[in-house]
Amino acid sequence: MATRTRLNPEQRRNQLLDLGAELFANQPFEEVWIEKVAEAAGVSRGLLYHYFPNKRAFFSAMLRREAARMSELTRPDSSLPVREQLLAGIEAYLDYCAAHPMGVRSVYRGAASADPEVREIIESDLRIQEARILGALSPGAVHPLMRVAVRSWLQFLRAACHEWLVSRDVGRDELRDLCARVLVGVVTTLPDDARPPGAIELLG
Amino acid sequence: MATRTRLNPEQRRNQLLDLGAELFANQPFEEVWIEKVAEAAGVSRGLLYHYFPNKRAFFSAMLRREAARMSELTRPDSSLPVREQLLAGIEAYLDYCAAHPMGVRSVYRGAASADPEVREIIESDLRIQEARILGALSPGAVHPLMRVAVRSWLQFLRAACHEWLVSRDVGRDELRDLCARVLVGVVTTLPDDARPPGAIELLG
Repeated sequence: MATRTRLNPEQRRNQLLDLGAELFANQPFEEVWIEKVAEAAGVSRGLLYHYFPNKRAFFSAMLRREAARMSELTRPDSSLPVREQLLAGIEAYLDYCAAHPMGVRSVYRGAASADPEVREIIESDLRIQEARILGALSPGAVHPLMRVAVRSWLQFLRAACHEWLVSRDVGRDELRDLCARVLVGVVTTLPDDARPPGAIELLG
Repeated sequence: MATRTRLNPEQRRNQLLDLGAELFANQPFEEVWIEKVAEAAGVSRGLLYHYFPNKRAFFSAMLRREAARMSELTRPDSSLPVREQLLAGIEAYLDYCAAHPMGVRSVYRGAASADPEVREIIESDLRIQEARILGALSPGAVHPLMRVAVRSWLQFLRAACHEWLVSRDVGRDELRDLCARVLVGVVTTLPDDARPPGAIELLG
């Protein structure tokens, strides 16, 4: 097969996914032609289809890798105070969304969100974020209401970020502050028996 | 066509949708056979298909009607203080979810949520709820950050309710209180220029 660059299969796959991530970042899912990825990589369409039989498969492979990357980007630095760790996580999430606006929109409520595999990747990412927040705030057993609160706050964050990408009429920093303060509020507002001991101090 | 009861087309359609709402309330979308609706209504499958060509069409017709019904159930009583209006809305929403657990789950993250028509119905319902909350709290112009905050809180509420239906390990009233307090917190935490004047007092 004629290709401009000799890459082993894993390198080739990664190259294609990198190019795809760029493409999907700025174009709605429906408008992306993955054949353009083959073009940009200088490979035949046949080779592209060999790695990814269709757009859906390509998109979910890309998303799986992006989710892993985002999970790294938002990995908390446990040497920092908890409040800073959480803020840094929100910052990293917003930065990622700003760099991949169309991809995030497609996944949140657009065409890609209908795919069960896409939903499963998002779900698993949410579980990671949830476990990190709960781990930071609640080293012991987690009260069910605390878990519901944090899980629901993650949906607050996703929705707020989606709104920001769609309407662009609020500033990034005011959005970040809103989400951070709401998380503090969510934890603060829990009944005493549901709130992990010391959580308010950790967030203060 | 032989039917046990003579109904005009609109009555028949409503009867079928009523029976469907019951069926979908307690069974996951994938497990519902709409042919059972024909059976329960004492009509032929042919007649059912005449009204609704397939399960998806049946489900979205049912959901559209349910959304309209829910919108009525949660209509705020403007003679009440704003805080009571919002609480009553949350109560009505939770009661509805408790009565239709499987339907709500299918729509939130289950099989039905992949359908663009279903998403559009949900989206339009969210817009109604958002307009009501904003109307009650912010009679004048709405700051974009206030809109984002309320819209995101509605996703908090949906997520919390979904969690409650799935894991059943938190009480209904503690969930209601959490959601209500978080709404107050969301509004309270907005910067002064984004918060509608008097909103904290209205919620207090």
